[in-house]
Amino acid sequence: MDQPTDKERIFTAALVIIGDEILSGRTQDANLAYLAKWLNVQGIRLKEVRVVADEQQAIVEAVNACRARHDYVFTTGGIGPTHDDITVDAIAVAFGVPVILHPRAEAMLRAHYAERITEARLRMARVPAGADIIENKGSAAPGVRIGNVFILAGIPTVMRAMLDSLDGVLEGGRPVLSRTVAAHVAESEVAELLRSVEAAHEGVQVGSYPFWRQGKIGANFVVRATDAPLMDATCTAILDGLRAMGIDPVDGEL
Amino acid sequence: MDQPTDKERIFTAALVIIGDEILSGRTQDANLAYLAKWLNVQGIRLKEVRVVADEQQAIVEAVNACRARHDYVFTTGGIGPTHDDITVDAIAVAFGVPVILHPRAEAMLRAHYAERITEARLRMARVPAGADIIENKGSAAPGVRIGNVFILAGIPTVMRAMLDSLDGVLEGGRPVLSRTVAAHVAESEVAELLRSVEAAHEGVQVGSYPFWRQGKIGANFVVRATDAPLMDATCTAILDGLRAMGIDPVDGEL
Repeated sequence: MDQPTDKERIFTAALVIIGDEILSGRTQDANLAYLAKWLNVQGIRLKEVRVVADEQQAIVEAVNACRARHDYVFTTGGIGPTHDDITVDAIAVAFGVPVILHPRAEAMLRAHYAERITEARLRMARVPAGADIIENKGSAAPGVRIGNVFILAGIPTVMRAMLDSLDGVLEGGRPVLSRTVAAHVAESEVAELLRSVEAAHEGVQVGSYPFWRQGKIGANFVVRATDAPLMDATCTAILDGLRAMGIDPVDGEL
Repeated sequence: MDQPTDKERIFTAALVIIGDEILSGRTQDANLAYLAKWLNVQGIRLKEVRVVADEQQAIVEAVNACRARHDYVFTTGGIGPTHDDITVDAIAVAFGVPVILHPRAEAMLRAHYAERITEARLRMARVPAGADIIENKGSAAPGVRIGNVFILAGIPTVMRAMLDSLDGVLEGGRPVLSRTVAAHVAESEVAELLRSVEAAHEGVQVGSYPFWRQGKIGANFVVRATDAPLMDATCTAILDGLRAMGIDPVDGEL
């Protein structure tokens, strides 16, 4: 009687990581996993990530492809004061607008640097016309929001300070819940069980993540759903199925 | 007299990471940086990375976009024996070919598992028609090559064993060299120096990577080029420029 009649709206996001230093292998990205978990709390799913070079055309293409397909797009990197920081200019091109000096960002930077203000530092107040700024308690340089695109810093502490300002601001749906069960078993032994359990529980995703540690093989089975009873029923079915095969499963992660 | 007359060919690659576990933030990717460095040794530049969900359409789109634009495309993830391993099927769709059981891969799996062979395990011998297999000393399950696409495992040790088999096999150009100089200085103070030094040395890229550690700010300046004397001349120009500003630079990384 109280069944939901229309399909639940799913909110999705993409991340565009801008940085030659990631593509060269010099730096390990530390923002993807943090953003993914933060988004999930907001009820938004990270569906796509692209890492692109510090090249205008690559940034424009990636941002335009992603903003057409997702509710939200986040970019990280390339918003500092140096010549290789071209994100703001590229996103202005993506939106077909000029770059302007944002009055409040300029005021914040002038207040922070006082007589040490330079042309390079003022670059950090440049935004695509029509953009808002995203405050960041950690430093004077703000993030930028234009349309559904959020331009964040690449340095993880600064990126996180900017995300803090967006907590609870974005519309989302129900967060994806996840629960893990596991066993010391070759995943290929239980492939058919996992397939049939997933098929029998609509709206649930079952991922199988094998490992081989300290001479023992095993796998974690991650069950994801937005509905807690459905998720739990799926876990129970996997646990029961494993026991029926004579395997001693773990209700949790291995 | 001995000048190179035609432009050096640059070989590029893309990586498509297939995995809901990366997009959910549950697992931190460990293959990107390794592949980037391995490619550089082969004289190939990683220019683009995409992380996509375990969904056929997303994989097909990413692989088709990347293989049209780059000399080589690598995929990681989704080639195990379970129902969520859909990479081979998706790439067969991307190439418009059926999936077949590769005779040599099947023989390897049957030899390895003997009477323990199952239908799930035989899934790991499935390849798009026309594909070759990529041997992997670490386990019986091979990687797959079709056209310019290389289908690798997601588990880092297995992925690396597959890359080992490709060492020296792919045509590349000159590797990108890099050298780092650094200083305890705000990058905004030296933005103009970096910009002008880069502009004066064609074919060189200067990246600025600021940090803030133990109460001290600073930045590493990474100079990349395929030509060693040009790279060294650029570093010398940055070091001299920093000294001329009264800054004491470091010839190396901070």
